[in-house]
Amino acid sequence: MTTLPSPTINDIYKARPNVYRHLRPTPLYHYRGLSELVGGEIFLKHENHQPVGAFKVRGGLNLVANLDNRQKRGGLFTASTGNHGQSIAFAARAHGIKATIAVPEGANPGKVSAMRGLGAEVVFHGTDFDAARLWITELARERGGTFVGPTDEPLIHGVGTYALEILEDHPDVDSIIVPVGAGSGVCGTAIVAKSINPKIQIIGVQSAQAPTMQHSWQQGQPVEAQMKTIAEGLATRIPFANTQAIMARYLDDFVLVEDKALEEAVRLLIMHSHNLVEEAGAAPLAAALNLKKQLVGKKIVLVVSGGNLSVERLAHILLD
Amino acid sequence: MTTLPSPTINDIYKARPNVYRHLRPTPLYHYRGLSELVGGEIFLKHENHQPVGAFKVRGGLNLVANLDNRQKRGGLFTASTGNHGQSIAFAARAHGIKATIAVPEGANPGKVSAMRGLGAEVVFHGTDFDAARLWITELARERGGTFVGPTDEPLIHGVGTYALEILEDHPDVDSIIVPVGAGSGVCGTAIVAKSINPKIQIIGVQSAQAPTMQHSWQQGQPVEAQMKTIAEGLATRIPFANTQAIMARYLDDFVLVEDKALEEAVRLLIMHSHNLVEEAGAAPLAAALNLKKQLVGKKIVLVVSGGNLSVERLAHILLD
Repeated sequence: MTTLPSPTINDIYKARPNVYRHLRPTPLYHYRGLSELVGGEIFLKHENHQPVGAFKVRGGLNLVANLDNRQKRGGLFTASTGNHGQSIAFAARAHGIKATIAVPEGANPGKVSAMRGLGAEVVFHGTDFDAARLWITELARERGGTFVGPTDEPLIHGVGTYALEILEDHPDVDSIIVPVGAGSGVCGTAIVAKSINPKIQIIGVQSAQAPTMQHSWQQGQPVEAQMKTIAEGLATRIPFANTQAIMARYLDDFVLVEDKALEEAVRLLIMHSHNLVEEAGAAPLAAALNLKKQLVGKKIVLVVSGGNLSVERLAHILLD
Repeated sequence: MTTLPSPTINDIYKARPNVYRHLRPTPLYHYRGLSELVGGEIFLKHENHQPVGAFKVRGGLNLVANLDNRQKRGGLFTASTGNHGQSIAFAARAHGIKATIAVPEGANPGKVSAMRGLGAEVVFHGTDFDAARLWITELARERGGTFVGPTDEPLIHGVGTYALEILEDHPDVDSIIVPVGAGSGVCGTAIVAKSINPKIQIIGVQSAQAPTMQHSWQQGQPVEAQMKTIAEGLATRIPFANTQAIMARYLDDFVLVEDKALEEAVRLLIMHSHNLVEEAGAAPLAAALNLKKQLVGKKIVLVVSGGNLSVERLAHILLD
């Protein structure tokens, strides 16, 4: 009997019923205009079509479904720049439990208002995600609640369900490019894809203005780096050990793209797919445009998540 | 035995397998910000998430599935300002047959390029949809092909499948607001909703700058009117008799909104739902904002279709 390293694709199969009790599969569409730009066949996995505009909602639903009654009574505590928080708020509401979310000062007002709209208590603390996270971890301890870290394993299992959908729709995919913040998405994707076909190339992408996960992966040890990106979904300052371990095992490549290229990718996605995507969600297209030479003739899936761009950022990008 | 007037909800059930062979159901999401603006509970039926960004693709797939072999060999001929043509092109490609589409001069280049990308032959003719339509009808006759009018019954049956999805998700809906171009969408919706619950209020919306369908419905006879709207999806100059007959029987209300209000609704949809929607797709929100008094406390579905807004129009709307 062989033992697979944890988590396995079976963990992701176990998450499926917890996810599909509340969500439908998202579309995977081919775009001719984008394919012509890249030189390979480009498919978008539309996680921006999720109720909170991001794949993370799958993870939240799986995590909450796995809580015991004592944990449910104590409520959930987490920190977020936006999409992870919306995911936890959505899942908590779906299961009738309380969520308290710390966000950094200056957090995207649209995302904060969405979290509150989903019934979560939102508290501003600290100047970035990691500062908010350290503070709310303490608060959860004091109040006897459950702290949810952004890379907790049930989250990885839940988000991996979108990767199963990709393989169900297009089992002959060559490359999947995934935006990396804390790494739950890319890990779920890699576990599924490599278990079904080890030849599928998994590529992570982060902003050159916030490269901590990429530097840590490249050097094989945790490295802190600058965190100045405009892309909230990629804005990680301290690397996460558990996702780094999975990425070390499975990731084929991990590229950096400039913030400017993220903005151009947002514009190209509007033009060619008529989808509104935030900077993090556009990162896989920016990466594909940088990797054109090695992607020629291939079937490429770009994971588009999230979609929560503000009107102000959109106007700025279109006018630039 | 009672006989229902044709088409019936059973025709729409018959279309289901033809539609779901190629498409998945679209989401119906609640939006708190929009609900606060209107004063009722606002749900968006996301037909903008369809592969061609509009509900019409359901109709095209049903129509092509019902062709006989002689008709398939002769190919399809139609006219379109964009979304209907993309729908026919998508369905023709899915079934391996040829589509020829007449578009008015100055048609939206993104939509033209999308039709060509789907393998259709696109021919420019005339200054508006109706001119292009009269011309291509003749061409179809000369070449022995099948002309597809924008309100052909199999199209109405196909698009009605989104209304079944609405009732499946929220059987307690009070009002459904639908944009009206040629009327296939509102007719499919009305047939389904009134058959399941006659109390569901069906409201059509057209631009005050292109009110032919509204004027004809109101006066109970065909009336030509000005056609100056910026909303391609609502740009009808000559009313359609078969959809008018269905609307006369089933429609509760039919409102007009100014083009300026369509642009504001596009902006509000970006802000509150992060979805990019073309002016026609935003018309139901503009109508709901005008009808606030009568919608207070109700459960309202806005049919959001289509989503094919150009970058240039988007920039114009955001800067205005």
